[in-house]
Amino acid sequence: MLVDIKRPVPSDIEIAQEAKMRPILEVALEAGLREDELDLYGKYKAKVHLSVLERLADRPNGKYIDVTAITPTPLGEGKTVTTIGLSQSLAYLGEKVITCIRQPSQGPTFGIKGGAAGGGYAQVVSMEDFNLHLTGDIHAVGAAHNLLAAAIDNRLQKESRWSTNFLAKALCPNDEYTPSMRRRLAKLGIQSEKPSDLSPEDKERMFRLDIDPYSIQWRRVVDVSDASLRNIIIGLGTVNDGPPRQSGYDITVASEIMAALALCSGLEDLRERMGRIVIGTNKKGEPITAEDLNVAGAMTVLLKDAVMPNLMQTLMGSPTFVHCGPFANIAQGNNSILADRIALKLVGPNGYVVTESGFGADCGMEKFFNIKCRVSGLIPNCVVLVCTVRALKMHGGGPKVVAGKPLDKAYTQENLELLEKGLPNLLQHIENVLKFGVPVVVAINRFKDDTEAEVELIRQAATQTGAEGAFVHTAWADGGAGAVDLARAVMKACEKPSQFRFLYPDDFSIKEKIETIAREIYRADGVTYTPEAEEKIKLFTDMGLSRLPICMAKTHLSFTHDPALKGAPRGWILPVTDIRASVGAGFLYPLCGTMRTMPGLPTRPAFTDVDLDLKTGRVVGLF
Amino acid sequence: MLVDIKRPVPSDIEIAQEAKMRPILEVALEAGLREDELDLYGKYKAKVHLSVLERLADRPNGKYIDVTAITPTPLGEGKTVTTIGLSQSLAYLGEKVITCIRQPSQGPTFGIKGGAAGGGYAQVVSMEDFNLHLTGDIHAVGAAHNLLAAAIDNRLQKESRWSTNFLAKALCPNDEYTPSMRRRLAKLGIQSEKPSDLSPEDKERMFRLDIDPYSIQWRRVVDVSDASLRNIIIGLGTVNDGPPRQSGYDITVASEIMAALALCSGLEDLRERMGRIVIGTNKKGEPITAEDLNVAGAMTVLLKDAVMPNLMQTLMGSPTFVHCGPFANIAQGNNSILADRIALKLVGPNGYVVTESGFGADCGMEKFFNIKCRVSGLIPNCVVLVCTVRALKMHGGGPKVVAGKPLDKAYTQENLELLEKGLPNLLQHIENVLKFGVPVVVAINRFKDDTEAEVELIRQAATQTGAEGAFVHTAWADGGAGAVDLARAVMKACEKPSQFRFLYPDDFSIKEKIETIAREIYRADGVTYTPEAEEKIKLFTDMGLSRLPICMAKTHLSFTHDPALKGAPRGWILPVTDIRASVGAGFLYPLCGTMRTMPGLPTRPAFTDVDLDLKTGRVVGLF
Repeated sequence: MLVDIKRPVPSDIEIAQEAKMRPILEVALEAGLREDELDLYGKYKAKVHLSVLERLADRPNGKYIDVTAITPTPLGEGKTVTTIGLSQSLAYLGEKVITCIRQPSQGPTFGIKGGAAGGGYAQVVSMEDFNLHLTGDIHAVGAAHNLLAAAIDNRLQKESRWSTNFLAKALCPNDEYTPSMRRRLAKLGIQSEKPSDLSPEDKERMFRLDIDPYSIQWRRVVDVSDASLRNIIIGLGTVNDGPPRQSGYDITVASEIMAALALCSGLEDLRERMGRIVIGTNKKGEPITAEDLNVAGAMTVLLKDAVMPNLMQTLMGSPTFVHCGPFANIAQGNNSILADRIALKLVGPNGYVVTESGFGADCGMEKFFNIKCRVSGLIPNCVVLVCTVRALKMHGGGPKVVAGKPLDKAYTQENLELLEKGLPNLLQHIENVLKFGVPVVVAINRFKDDTEAEVELIRQAATQTGAEGAFVHTAWADGGAGAVDLARAVMKACEKPSQFRFLYPDDFSIKEKIETIAREIYRADGVTYTPEAEEKIKLFTDMGLSRLPICMAKTHLSFTHDPALKGAPRGWILPVTDIRASVGAGFLYPLCGTMRTMPGLPTRPAFTDVDLDLKTGRVVGLF
Repeated sequence: MLVDIKRPVPSDIEIAQEAKMRPILEVALEAGLREDELDLYGKYKAKVHLSVLERLADRPNGKYIDVTAITPTPLGEGKTVTTIGLSQSLAYLGEKVITCIRQPSQGPTFGIKGGAAGGGYAQVVSMEDFNLHLTGDIHAVGAAHNLLAAAIDNRLQKESRWSTNFLAKALCPNDEYTPSMRRRLAKLGIQSEKPSDLSPEDKERMFRLDIDPYSIQWRRVVDVSDASLRNIIIGLGTVNDGPPRQSGYDITVASEIMAALALCSGLEDLRERMGRIVIGTNKKGEPITAEDLNVAGAMTVLLKDAVMPNLMQTLMGSPTFVHCGPFANIAQGNNSILADRIALKLVGPNGYVVTESGFGADCGMEKFFNIKCRVSGLIPNCVVLVCTVRALKMHGGGPKVVAGKPLDKAYTQENLELLEKGLPNLLQHIENVLKFGVPVVVAINRFKDDTEAEVELIRQAATQTGAEGAFVHTAWADGGAGAVDLARAVMKACEKPSQFRFLYPDDFSIKEKIETIAREIYRADGVTYTPEAEEKIKLFTDMGLSRLPICMAKTHLSFTHDPALKGAPRGWILPVTDIRASVGAGFLYPLCGTMRTMPGLPTRPAFTDVDLDLKTGRVVGLF
């Protein structure tokens, strides 16, 4: 460990700041990277060039472990602590291991939840870099996203003022097409070598995008929790500032660009994805893309460094990739494929890559398998399912758990009855993992009031349902030494031959895919669709998008669409209210309820405590 | 030179990409930095720790050279090319030299003007890093700015919903004040150890900021040219999204935070500046600051890396600091004091620091002297005044010069009469420099059609008016060898004993300061003030702000407030329409006309040509 373990356990930031970090160059070289494959960003973080994938193309992959969780309480059940703790214990046992996690948004860091880099003695350091800017990837996503947004409104404004001839002349001052324009010509089926060749009709089709302002689904983004930007009117002022229309902001990590970055296989693929992004339609209802706006190249240029994974370290000094943080409801909620891919090559066939999926296993893990692994072709070897006594008691009917309020005594005293009633939530998740043909190990994140009888009850039920076992870990308090049993069980599970399979094939219809997930994972009796959703299904099918995987936008607080329904509900119907397409990211996302894409701030935002200690230059108050 | 010189001169990006850059570590060590004073950001850029200032505290400063220009045409007169060219020539002559320039905004890079890192064989490389993100400083300024904006609207929303008792309890859940809250208590003159001590009246004063929504001058920022965000309505939706009010976006470099960052002496000073930022007033008209919102600490934390200057290199491989880019009208338009200060220590008493001021000398240079040097205490040794035959002919009454349109033949054929009529603009600038007691060397940025007779006419007039001479340079075409005469003249001028003096003392009244600048620099016969401006002068004087320097917000296209008035106008009055305070940055800025703080996009934005060459991974189309 990079830090001496103390009792009582100090605050996260105190532990992180006491750590004697290894130079990241040393961590990188030990992991098998070459110096010329790195861009250092200071002494303790680095970007890794994608060229390493070519160099190691022939090396077999390491074992691929996904950490997920049962349906959580609003407090979270310690998935990141388990992810980092498991990695630290694998390193402690002398195994080759790389952790791959998401980069957090600065919005919640300064808003509701404070910093996030694990916790206690299971953390990624430096904590300040992890929580603040890192190497600027989220800012780059925001810059690319907002450049496209500006391009849309600028085009609306210019087309409202100028003739088609003027537009054509302005866009092609030398009577030449750009490569982007040639792509649009091809899409429109127009044969033309230069703009002056075009018939008036073709010129109109080519240069007047005729965007329907009411169709525009591309909003703007900022990496701040700013509720007052959720619904805004833009374009007020004078003729050069307009036209006015309603729009709004999402938090940057909710951008489709973040989802696309996390799923891309490199710059070439990213360039294609940027071009495919659909921002809305023209007045005939035909999709308008970033390529049509001639901005996809510039967007990719803005992302050319962000595509490289960021290397950091755990408190064991073991390598960690922190790369991309797409939303877990309207997007896939998993870190980047590129980070995982590089990590799997670096550790090689005898090593381990531990990654984490957002939300519970019905959300993040299902998307890890059906979207992320489908796109990457990587084969997972083991799932670690995190649970707590607390959450299971809640599923058994325990009182409401509310952030910031003291826990009811049901949660701090032994209560086997409540726990037993809650077990079906855990068991359904275990069954779900097994449907993908992947072995599952349960990790019990134990709190001080949990009794041995409670832990034993979980252990028995989990094993009977097909888990490889259930193991208490104390990585939060004990660091690398705290999850040794879990680590050994995971290593053993990884020895099993993988029988990984997707839940649905590419050629299922959109409805078949949705209904398969609803039936097999959520255990709904059926799915209903609003007329709007039915219309979209037809539209997307006609557009040839039905082969895309499905990214369910559903609450993570229940197997159902209703966050109040705990446990393992049966006899219910999943309502799909709308379906949207992230064509650049490459999935369709059905909406099962309202998804918030811009958080707000509480009365006392987390920024209230954050400051610089001017004597030491250290950050304080970042929890 | 890092690149072989070719004919004809290739495009800027071609030259930049052919350059065999030196590792920035090598550049840094040669400049006298230590490895532990650097944070590398990849191989070709680095941040420099401020601790170097302590290490070199006793070393005498180098010579301090400011590059400025006559009143430019809308095309610009090659000030950055001259700055970099002069530096390259000093390096070519074997002198110790560091260039200090501003970081450009990404807005114009993708909008109207394209990339900016000098041009031809006088460039800073890598050009991509220079123009894209660099090390994320502008993004950090945006994050800090928008966090404060979110804090304002969140506070408005919460105060509109909650009782004072609820607010007090929420903000101080443990009946304790944060350090920020203690500052507010002190400002309000309230003695209190804990919130529960407060009388109901004091609790109301302390915890209910009672911000007047109509007074809020703090807008939001984004580093994109996005005209449709100039005027917006925010806070629509439901009760948690409001309250609705009118607001808008500026481009990030127009943020007061950028101005403050460029003027600060370090993190401690920056923390104070952030706390002093006035966002508006309460309903009694009393100023409300970022400190009152408990967010100044978090803002500073977001800027802790941005405060460190970024090291890059010229095409001669000589060191260049690229740091901060505040607006040149509503702010000071000069790079950071910290970069200049570190550079002056590094080059030492026999070396040279070449820096650049935005706009013409009546704007950027006046602010360089009266604001930047006043704050820093640094003594300038020489001014280089860039002029072109083209611009002087325009001042002599030549036809309008419009970007993107071919030049009239008045500009491409010898025309001594027109040139002579335009000379007074140059001569007024020379006289202005001399009023500060600093020697001035004129640099003639020569174009291919300029004749020897034209150049000679400038040379004579400049020398007669008191300049140290006027020198043609060809740094654009010839790189380091292209400005040797200019460099030698600058070195000679720097040997003169400095008699530097400010134009006005701190204790002049606000009006005395404005009128001194108007009379001495612009040569106005007087100044008029709107009733609004008069009111603000009284308000700021009552607030104790009259000791701050003045930052005139005036067009750079004329000595007057009217961009159409060329030459050296006499017999006119300067109208001041309003005065605003940037208390965090530390100046007052009188408005002489409408200042645009958010650029728009043309019909064919510069992003149209930008793309990645996927075969080489190189950026194309960034001019």
